[in-house]
Amino acid sequence: MDQRVVTLDNMNPHVIKMEYAVRGPLVIRATQLEKELQAGAQKPFSVVTKANIGDAHAMGQKPITFIRQVVSICLTPTLLDDPSFPDDAKQRAREVMAGCKGSSLGSYSDSAGIESIRRHVASYIQARDGHPSSWENIILCSGASEGIRGIMKLMVRHDNGNKPGVMIPIPQYPLYSASIAEFDLHQIGYYLDESTNWGLDLSEMERAYEEAKAVCTPKALVVINPGNPTGNVLSRENIEAVIKFAHERNLFLFADEVYQDNVYADGCKFHSFKKVTSEMGAPYNQMELASFMSCSKGYMGECGLRGGYAEVTNMDPEVKTMYLKSISAKLCPTTLGQAVMACVVNPPREGEPSYEQFLTEKKGVLSSLAQRAKMVVEAFNSVPGMSCNIVQGAMYAFPQIMLPEKAIAAARKAGQEPDVFYAFQLLENTGICIVPGSGFGQRPGTYHFRTTILPQPEMLKTMLEKFREFHTKFVEQYQ
Amino acid sequence: MDQRVVTLDNMNPHVIKMEYAVRGPLVIRATQLEKELQAGAQKPFSVVTKANIGDAHAMGQKPITFIRQVVSICLTPTLLDDPSFPDDAKQRAREVMAGCKGSSLGSYSDSAGIESIRRHVASYIQARDGHPSSWENIILCSGASEGIRGIMKLMVRHDNGNKPGVMIPIPQYPLYSASIAEFDLHQIGYYLDESTNWGLDLSEMERAYEEAKAVCTPKALVVINPGNPTGNVLSRENIEAVIKFAHERNLFLFADEVYQDNVYADGCKFHSFKKVTSEMGAPYNQMELASFMSCSKGYMGECGLRGGYAEVTNMDPEVKTMYLKSISAKLCPTTLGQAVMACVVNPPREGEPSYEQFLTEKKGVLSSLAQRAKMVVEAFNSVPGMSCNIVQGAMYAFPQIMLPEKAIAAARKAGQEPDVFYAFQLLENTGICIVPGSGFGQRPGTYHFRTTILPQPEMLKTMLEKFREFHTKFVEQYQ
Ligand SMILES: Cc1ncc(COP(=O)(O)O)c(C=O)c1O
Ligand SMILES: Cc1ncc(COP(=O)(O)O)c(C=O)c1O
Repeated sequence: MDQRVVTLDNMNPHVIKMEYAVRGPLVIRATQLEKELQAGAQKPFSVVTKANIGDAHAMGQKPITFIRQVVSICLTPTLLDDPSFPDDAKQRAREVMAGCKGSSLGSYSDSAGIESIRRHVASYIQARDGHPSSWENIILCSGASEGIRGIMKLMVRHDNGNKPGVMIPIPQYPLYSASIAEFDLHQIGYYLDESTNWGLDLSEMERAYEEAKAVCTPKALVVINPGNPTGNVLSRENIEAVIKFAHERNLFLFADEVYQDNVYADGCKFHSFKKVTSEMGAPYNQMELASFMSCSKGYMGECGLRGGYAEVTNMDPEVKTMYLKSISAKLCPTTLGQAVMACVVNPPREGEPSYEQFLTEKKGVLSSLAQRAKMVVEAFNSVPGMSCNIVQGAMYAFPQIMLPEKAIAAARKAGQEPDVFYAFQLLENTGICIVPGSGFGQRPGTYHFRTTILPQPEMLKTMLEKFREFHTKFVEQYQ
Repeated sequence: MDQRVVTLDNMNPHVIKMEYAVRGPLVIRATQLEKELQAGAQKPFSVVTKANIGDAHAMGQKPITFIRQVVSICLTPTLLDDPSFPDDAKQRAREVMAGCKGSSLGSYSDSAGIESIRRHVASYIQARDGHPSSWENIILCSGASEGIRGIMKLMVRHDNGNKPGVMIPIPQYPLYSASIAEFDLHQIGYYLDESTNWGLDLSEMERAYEEAKAVCTPKALVVINPGNPTGNVLSRENIEAVIKFAHERNLFLFADEVYQDNVYADGCKFHSFKKVTSEMGAPYNQMELASFMSCSKGYMGECGLRGGYAEVTNMDPEVKTMYLKSISAKLCPTTLGQAVMACVVNPPREGEPSYEQFLTEKKGVLSSLAQRAKMVVEAFNSVPGMSCNIVQGAMYAFPQIMLPEKAIAAARKAGQEPDVFYAFQLLENTGICIVPGSGFGQRPGTYHFRTTILPQPEMLKTMLEKFREFHTKFVEQYQ
């Protein structure tokens, strides 16, 4: 056999370095276990519970009927004549098709998306915030991931030995650390404050910035609100403070707002960065800001269809031209994902035939999620050795676990991080797949895990019981 | 106003460098013209003809009914009870849904795609080639573009001052030059031989390789077959020769085979690189090879739905693990695009209810394309000062145009490449939008353009007449 051309020794070192824990070794093992169970293997559990990923439909959540109707009509326009499809769905489908070349979703759209949908997104933002939004600042994308990566990529350069730095929260959604590693940017982690329900701590951000300045050129600041994995919803004061922080230091703001519909806790409210910068007035309303939305989350949970948008405010026009050029080579985001976003930003209105059902479905999902958010937190807080902040929003809890010294030693002996060791034990013993805190980042010496709140209520209840049992046994074993 | 954070001066220089002519300034102008016409402006034409991009549905081609039925059912499973949808479409939809978590296309799939669809792709390749294909080597992607870029990215590294080099044909599909620029790889262009209908010329490849060796580390060789923009279909001998060439020089092969269903000329046949390497036996069947397919081309033309796959043969297992990890952060290709690919690789079979209609539609598109391929070539060859190779396959003609000295001088004066100047004149005078040869690459001192053969027959006829008129006048004007 000849020597291979591309090997671990000569391939892209940044691809080797990047990690994406949400789909890491634990998930691979969980999938294996599922197959083993199917093949009849005996395990201490009969079903694998994948609480590792924010994937609502995978956990049994039903799609929103209206969205599916619109996109089905878009694909099979003869359904326009089918009386079982409501008129508002037909009207939305007609409008999407009219925006497609040759009236077919099978044609490439503009790389930034179908103009009529970009306009609807801008109207949605304008109505949400009470401040103008321009459709030309809206870039549709195949999931928020694509938008985030595409804009982050604009900052990459390596010619002066001093890498551009990107500030990200710790714990963070690992798309950020993975993209920073892949693009060979400098990661500037700022710890979120577990003692204030994972809020932003300005002095910690200051520390992170000052330390990083010596080794990189800080360029951007990422905020995830509502937070993944933390479940935190930022207060308006916190947002204002972070905007001032970014302005003083001349940082490009990334506002990851994909969970904007997922706010559960009393007294919490979603405030978009766009709205807050607008209301703070000059100079804050002139800052470069990219904010991201997705159809994967919220009440719709249409992850697989890959829809999303970026709103890009105050980007240098020449840079924006380059951005648009850079996405053009990839041709276009999926038109179907765009059509889903069209429904999300322009849902049935009062008086339209689908309105009641849409509202019932939407509220049903969101209120059930709110219940489950509570249920998870209560369950974890009732287990000795676990403590869990309130899940104010998003779809996750990120509890801290106290691990016995002997368990830590056993993990080290096995060559694993203690939280990874714990997660593997949990998986092998209960079939529950969660993601260890080290996949998101955590203060040294603390251990956490992330679980989604997405299993349907009955399944979640069983999962939480099994969890308690496991944790108790685990602690006993290593006491 | 503050200084912006990200400017042309400090942004990613590789993004600035990249160009993607298929969607460049001409297309932007064409879109403007469309809007001006809509707004009632007077122009020497009443309609803009976008012959710049291989986008069949945009030019009026109808979708394949079966494909649309399957995906509509996948999105609205209640259509399983609708008697107007045929049983084979229902069966395919059931199978796709069964492969999705929670039976919903709204759940994220594995990053490499839904297993059952990957298995169907492997069976399709096996049946096509008569050689084994393993489903674990199939990576589904949102259009072939994503697969091509994802694998090319594995080769990037800049630590030894000697960039990895990628050999690409000239003229080429500009996704390659754009990605090479963006990834900061070294582009090694090898000229295709216009005198042999744009075939591969081994001595020219040798020249390109030898010259490049001094300034980069050649790592990969890209072949596009059937060719874009050339319309060439490679002979089996040519393919064998290029495989040997790549083997001797230890190059990773990229076989861009997205036009594998688009072969028109008598005596021409599509031979996949996978089949040919398999039949050549050792050591050729052990070479690293990635081949790409898409649902955007062929007879289906589902560009906007973004489906495709890469078959990755003999990739180093550790490198493959890294590849799979690198795509995991992007979560997954659109499940709907995957469902389209499922139909492409597993179409209605003889005896199934959709078989006749499917075959009629497929043959209808392909035979009409074959006719148009002929029509375009004949028309261009009948214009004095134009010469056009046979369009054996794909969807494009790439004729050479002789430009008068004075036209070249006028172009230079206007600060444009002569072929760009010509293309702008054509657009402003006739509304026809084509892509200048310089967007794909051409031998210095020669001028070409690429047009698709996709306008429907009547429109194409008109376009070709207007083209002849324009060209004649243009030459007269600058004689
Ligand atoms: C905070 C955050 N941002 C972005 C994304 C990307 O989602 P998508 O690409 O599916 O839109 C996710 C997905 O989990 C997320 O949690
Ligand atoms: C040669 C070639 N490769 C790849 C592609 C990418 O197509 P898609 O990303 O739509 O699958 C195209 C599109 O025109 C092409 O012509």
